Amino acid sequence: MSKSKLRWLLERDQTLPLYRQIEQQLRQRISNGEWPVGTRLPSQRKLAEQLGVNRSTVTQAIDELASWGIIAGNKGGGTRVVNNTWNRLAANTINWDRYVESGAHQPNLPAIRQINEAEYRADIIRTGTGEPGPELLPTARIRHILADASDEPFLGYEEPKGNLRLRQQIVHYVAKQGIQCSPESILIVSGALQALQLIAIGLLQRPSSIVAEAPSYIQSVRVFQSAGIGVHRVAMDAQGIKMSHLRQQLTEHQPGLLYTIPTFHNPTGTIMSNERRAELLELSSSLSLPLIEDDVYRELWLDEEPPPPLKSQDRHGNILYLGSLSKMMSPGIRVGWIIAPVPVIDRLADIKMQTDYGSSGLSQYVATRWLADGHQAQHQAWLREQLQARRDRLLAALEYHFGDIGAWNVPAGGFYIWLRLPVTVHVHRLFKLALRERILIHPGYMYDRAAAHHIRLSYSYAEMGQLEHSIQRLRQLVKQCMDV
Amino acid sequence: MSKSKLRWLLERDQTLPLYRQIEQQLRQRISNGEWPVGTRLPSQRKLAEQLGVNRSTVTQAIDELASWGIIAGNKGGGTRVVNNTWNRLAANTINWDRYVESGAHQPNLPAIRQINEAEYRADIIRTGTGEPGPELLPTARIRHILADASDEPFLGYEEPKGNLRLRQQIVHYVAKQGIQCSPESILIVSGALQALQLIAIGLLQRPSSIVAEAPSYIQSVRVFQSAGIGVHRVAMDAQGIKMSHLRQQLTEHQPGLLYTIPTFHNPTGTIMSNERRAELLELSSSLSLPLIEDDVYRELWLDEEPPPPLKSQDRHGNILYLGSLSKMMSPGIRVGWIIAPVPVIDRLADIKMQTDYGSSGLSQYVATRWLADGHQAQHQAWLREQLQARRDRLLAALEYHFGDIGAWNVPAGGFYIWLRLPVTVHVHRLFKLALRERILIHPGYMYDRAAAHHIRLSYSYAEMGQLEHSIQRLRQLVKQCMDV
Ligand SMILES: Cc1ncc(COP(=O)(O)O)c(C=O)c1O
Ligand SMILES: Cc1ncc(COP(=O)(O)O)c(C=O)c1O
Repeated sequence: MSKSKLRWLLERDQTLPLYRQIEQQLRQRISNGEWPVGTRLPSQRKLAEQLGVNRSTVTQAIDELASWGIIAGNKGGGTRVVNNTWNRLAANTINWDRYVESGAHQPNLPAIRQINEAEYRADIIRTGTGEPGPELLPTARIRHILADASDEPFLGYEEPKGNLRLRQQIVHYVAKQGIQCSPESILIVSGALQALQLIAIGLLQRPSSIVAEAPSYIQSVRVFQSAGIGVHRVAMDAQGIKMSHLRQQLTEHQPGLLYTIPTFHNPTGTIMSNERRAELLELSSSLSLPLIEDDVYRELWLDEEPPPPLKSQDRHGNILYLGSLSKMMSPGIRVGWIIAPVPVIDRLADIKMQTDYGSSGLSQYVATRWLADGHQAQHQAWLREQLQARRDRLLAALEYHFGDIGAWNVPAGGFYIWLRLPVTVHVHRLFKLALRERILIHPGYMYDRAAAHHIRLSYSYAEMGQLEHSIQRLRQLVKQCMDV
Repeated sequence: MSKSKLRWLLERDQTLPLYRQIEQQLRQRISNGEWPVGTRLPSQRKLAEQLGVNRSTVTQAIDELASWGIIAGNKGGGTRVVNNTWNRLAANTINWDRYVESGAHQPNLPAIRQINEAEYRADIIRTGTGEPGPELLPTARIRHILADASDEPFLGYEEPKGNLRLRQQIVHYVAKQGIQCSPESILIVSGALQALQLIAIGLLQRPSSIVAEAPSYIQSVRVFQSAGIGVHRVAMDAQGIKMSHLRQQLTEHQPGLLYTIPTFHNPTGTIMSNERRAELLELSSSLSLPLIEDDVYRELWLDEEPPPPLKSQDRHGNILYLGSLSKMMSPGIRVGWIIAPVPVIDRLADIKMQTDYGSSGLSQYVATRWLADGHQAQHQAWLREQLQARRDRLLAALEYHFGDIGAWNVPAGGFYIWLRLPVTVHVHRLFKLALRERILIHPGYMYDRAAAHHIRLSYSYAEMGQLEHSIQRLRQLVKQCMDV
């Protein structure tokens, strides 16, 4: 049950006692079908915590409902809705659980859902969140763009591939990175993540599989798995994908494509070397292996420009290239793009029209202005400076607190530091300990089942003072875990 | 090949002859992999038309490329890219067709794609388009909201179920329609269409099927079919769904749910009667049959308020209720909602996070202000007046031009008139004839394979003078078809 479920209005100075207010609200949720028969109630401890009342008050309310035969405890200790017929005689209720469990798309990993939920708690320090923090967002610039929204039509439906002016801007934008393309080979998507979803349902047969780096961007792997596609993993070293392992995986599993983040890899920060890039392109071309090049961090280089995108060398249309404004401008605006051969773009655009009828025209309008008016270039320069300073502070804090017990990369761009902890530390335990102190960490095992001793840190989101404090606290918690 | 593919810049007064410019541009698309080997070129006639040059100029360019062995004609008469290796020795190209054809999601119907494409031609009169036309969009109001965007954070990611303030506004909004719910049972979606997609991949097992009215909103039926779910159809009469036929379909096919548009049905304009609503609710409850109530047209009543939503009578959580701002405020902003039991909403929110990480925060912000600041109520009143006048004009035109040869409904709300033509008229022929005169009609067979003699008209989109002119012209074309 997510937190938001419990934003109820209890009024402390009402004539009705608190337990009766709680009972009424529970009853209402049950009687109007929001909590149908079979729904599991949050635990009494949780309810009490979230409503900010004593546990005994909750118990009183629950007992009351139970006495009406509306809810009942079960062996497992949980309490479920068992009846909602006090206001109507005999009626069948749909067993929604059966529906919820039988859909084709798989549920998210519990660890990810736990993190998703924790992230919306206002009081939490998010040490691993992979997005620009509130102070890094160009709110003033965007307000400026909005304030001066012209008569441009931005309220109607857009073309299937997305707003043409935006696609033209993207043509210019990627040209600077060495990619030649035209608007018809671009599809605007609601974030790069959606491009992966479209690829999963639009280009891969069932059964089939893909290969992805281990570790990798969690949601990328998930989106394929949830759509019923197998994901094989390929090991990395400091130069990027290990080619011998890749060849082995290709031979063994014959995957439909390779998903890679060659530049400022999430979560390790790795930049694939020029040599490795050449080898990979060669392999792709000789084996006719399509690549997804996820390049959402490219412009966030901190020391020097990274090697050009693989896509800039792609003369055969073997690469599906992903970009996004999420990491540079706004994750919430949901504007990303995929550049690929026209038949692929046509296919994906068709599916996108069928499933959500195109991305928000308002977001696309703002994105167009963002690129056309030169905001991107200006903001990028500023953002790099900010990120550089943040990176350096986080590195200094690590040096100080983890110098003797950890190992990490020095990222040349992107957001992430991949911190290795001593092997005696049980990271899930550390996660729980930290969360109790309102410090949210991103355990490495989410990115790669085998990465049992890593955590992902990000210098992009948390306020720096809080992040430094968290590193200091984490050292103590790590020590505590080591001593056990 | 979609139109947008041909937005090429030919410069008439360049030194390079036109045919060479065309050749170069084709060559570039082939060499940078946008048109990989195997891609089918648009026909020469089409190319010539779209580039605005003589066909012989195109032929010259094509012959040039063919002489290099880059493209070649095939038996079917088409021309395909056969080679792109003039700039690199022997390399394998990916057969994208194989990928494009093997994805799980099915392609859209050719008829729909044809209409999608025609709709983006600026010079076309769209007689059936189901969205508010440009003059009906509240552009000034939205500009006002944008101009005064506060410090509200609208650039970060939103909560999994969508912006909480927006969900609270929706609670108030639907309360006026008799629906009681709380924010946790609402999921914000990128248009009501996306809710259907989430239901298709999140709640229905494979294989399974649903029942939908015949005819029905095209994309709704498509989204289920494309996701591999069977769609059985149930007949309608003037009161809505024919209950006897529904019972028959339920017994025969045991579908997972029923999709219905009880209020201002698309495309027939039907309002389900109170009696039928009661029967349907009774059936749903006695058979535990979930219903999707698609209610996106509710507020667009023209004569009197329609009966309350089925959802307002739903005490068992049997109904998944869909709403949207598309028809009232902006189709391009992509803000819709689904109201359902919490376990269902949790499940759909989880899938939405996995596939697009939530809807545009900017769109959600504008939608919140739209509802909170009272724009919706004011605009709605104005919009009703406009639509009423438009409806009456269209009805008058029909009376005048089709009184002797057609039959139609008088819609009490929504956008649509479902026009029946004489049985001797071959509607696909009419479609083609009309398109030649830049009049786009929506053939009935798209909404229901059996509706061979209907077309859907909408008074919401086209400029009224043009719409009246089209009706007049259509009469002549219909006559022409009848004479054959
Ligand atoms: C490698 C990578 N690709 C894509 C994304 C998601 O981008 P978007 O917000 O555009 O969906 C992320 C976000 O964490 C990422 O790390
Ligand atoms: C019945 C019905 N539902 C839903 C939609 C689509 O709504 P949205 O733009 O919110 O996806 C339409 C649009 O034609 C419709 O007619």
